[in-house]
Amino acid sequence: MKTLEEVITLVQQEVKSINYTGEPKELYDPMNYVLQLGGKRLRPVTVLLAANLFSEDITAFPAAKAVEVFHNFTLVHDDIMDDAPLRRGQKTVHEKWNDNVAILSGDSLLIKAYDHFLEGSYANLNAVLSVFNTTAIEVCEGQQLDMNFETRDDVTISEYINMIRLKTSVLVGGAMKIGALVANASEADAEYIYDFGVNVGLAFQLQDDYLDCFGDPEKFGKQVGGDIISNKKTFMMLKALELDSTGELTGWLGKSNFDNKEKVSAVKQIYKKLGIDELAFKLMDQYYIKGLESLQAIKVNNGQKTMLKAFAAQLMKRSH
Amino acid sequence: MKTLEEVITLVQQEVKSINYTGEPKELYDPMNYVLQLGGKRLRPVTVLLAANLFSEDITAFPAAKAVEVFHNFTLVHDDIMDDAPLRRGQKTVHEKWNDNVAILSGDSLLIKAYDHFLEGSYANLNAVLSVFNTTAIEVCEGQQLDMNFETRDDVTISEYINMIRLKTSVLVGGAMKIGALVANASEADAEYIYDFGVNVGLAFQLQDDYLDCFGDPEKFGKQVGGDIISNKKTFMMLKALELDSTGELTGWLGKSNFDNKEKVSAVKQIYKKLGIDELAFKLMDQYYIKGLESLQAIKVNNGQKTMLKAFAAQLMKRSH
Repeated sequence: MKTLEEVITLVQQEVKSINYTGEPKELYDPMNYVLQLGGKRLRPVTVLLAANLFSEDITAFPAAKAVEVFHNFTLVHDDIMDDAPLRRGQKTVHEKWNDNVAILSGDSLLIKAYDHFLEGSYANLNAVLSVFNTTAIEVCEGQQLDMNFETRDDVTISEYINMIRLKTSVLVGGAMKIGALVANASEADAEYIYDFGVNVGLAFQLQDDYLDCFGDPEKFGKQVGGDIISNKKTFMMLKALELDSTGELTGWLGKSNFDNKEKVSAVKQIYKKLGIDELAFKLMDQYYIKGLESLQAIKVNNGQKTMLKAFAAQLMKRSH
Repeated sequence: MKTLEEVITLVQQEVKSINYTGEPKELYDPMNYVLQLGGKRLRPVTVLLAANLFSEDITAFPAAKAVEVFHNFTLVHDDIMDDAPLRRGQKTVHEKWNDNVAILSGDSLLIKAYDHFLEGSYANLNAVLSVFNTTAIEVCEGQQLDMNFETRDDVTISEYINMIRLKTSVLVGGAMKIGALVANASEADAEYIYDFGVNVGLAFQLQDDYLDCFGDPEKFGKQVGGDIISNKKTFMMLKALELDSTGELTGWLGKSNFDNKEKVSAVKQIYKKLGIDELAFKLMDQYYIKGLESLQAIKVNNGQKTMLKAFAAQLMKRSH
């Protein structure tokens, strides 16, 4: 049996080996460019780990590549919508080429994702693609909700949780369910692993929101305080608005002329004062534990679950 | 056996019955909006007609809907790229909503296209989707080539034919091949019907280019002369540039201050003088006849081919 590190390395090699060829180059170059920007390849790793739980004798790599290529499709199109200039420190596709090239090469990545599934010659292709389609549409719903929330001032915490569930967590759950299905897991076990993935995905996104605010700038990779600067309606922001009776936080959100550093520092102080950091941790823990309970319910022996547990713990930077 | 008109009516009803439900409405409303703008539904009709050639006992409707929904995805994204304000006399999605909504609802239509294939529970789903993916990627290649050609002044006639083959004809061929596959045609017959579709598709696109120039404004539906006004490098334009030794045509293309009506009239006269209209007809005919030869080669009795022949003739506005 392979170690977690070996699985991760294998998946990274598989993704790195993807090289689409064809004409015109304005279509194919951006597809290869975005795929080779790197990244931790978390989603395809989860496909493999989920599949390994049920069978060692399967080829889940095509499905894993499909999920990663789909994820990259979303990155290319989201970056247009968010007008993002950089992705992993490099120019985004629409910046390096233009919006039209980004739309079309993104579309082509989505089609290629389906093509990778076909490579797998899966006997239960219909069931596998059904999970994938449901997940893919939900990711689109999440992205649209995220954009809608930017101009709304009545977003609730449950709406926010639903949005991040759709935008980011269902793909983790879907990746695992797909891994389970290509390894011929039972329908019940496939559901359990889906719930494990969605809940760990939620915990992971809430952790990302937390780190965006309280993370170590050296380790976080993105600008710390970005969510605060853009008034992003995260769990922390929404909870703080609910608890802040002084109106101090609302004051900061309404101001247009301020120093960003000053704002980030002031909002962080408000969060600390209201205990928002602790509440965020508590919520993260709830989802994480809920996820582990679903994993526990899967009918394979506990030894086989070790690697998935280790991977989840690694994601959540925990020792257990 | 159903008549051609009955098949067309059934397909139109099937497409009209599509109504995607879900939240948020900014994602789902545009998907339903573009699908209900109408149109002749040529592509899903060809799926049905091709399937009927090989089997009466099949349900090709899911595949037909998939192809039509895919076509609508291309319309939504192409309209963003071409900055088109109107589609069938109504506002395009990006005009009625915005670019981001059009990108995301287009993406969702592409995913839904795959979902329709799953509805069919096709035993040979892998083979069906393989044809669909190849076709879909080629349509993207064609759109990118079309955009590239706008800024190139060395486009050759064979490059133009290859571009329209990819952008429009392979979808007609692909639709027919998919229809054949869901009706369990042999691989050889599926190839013949693909060639029939591609060649008739080429003839149809060349006819569309011809009508853009010489069509009856009452019947054409689009602005007659639009290609001439925008210096579009069609077969007629490229052939005329090749044959025009006077430099008169090049003169018209270079001018920036002119009356559009005057330009259209002058270029049409040049075309007539050089016999371009006749050459366009000849090329159309070549592809049309080549298509009919492929249809002839299919190993079913000739009576069953009558409806497909009649449909092709109707497309080409011919009596035979």
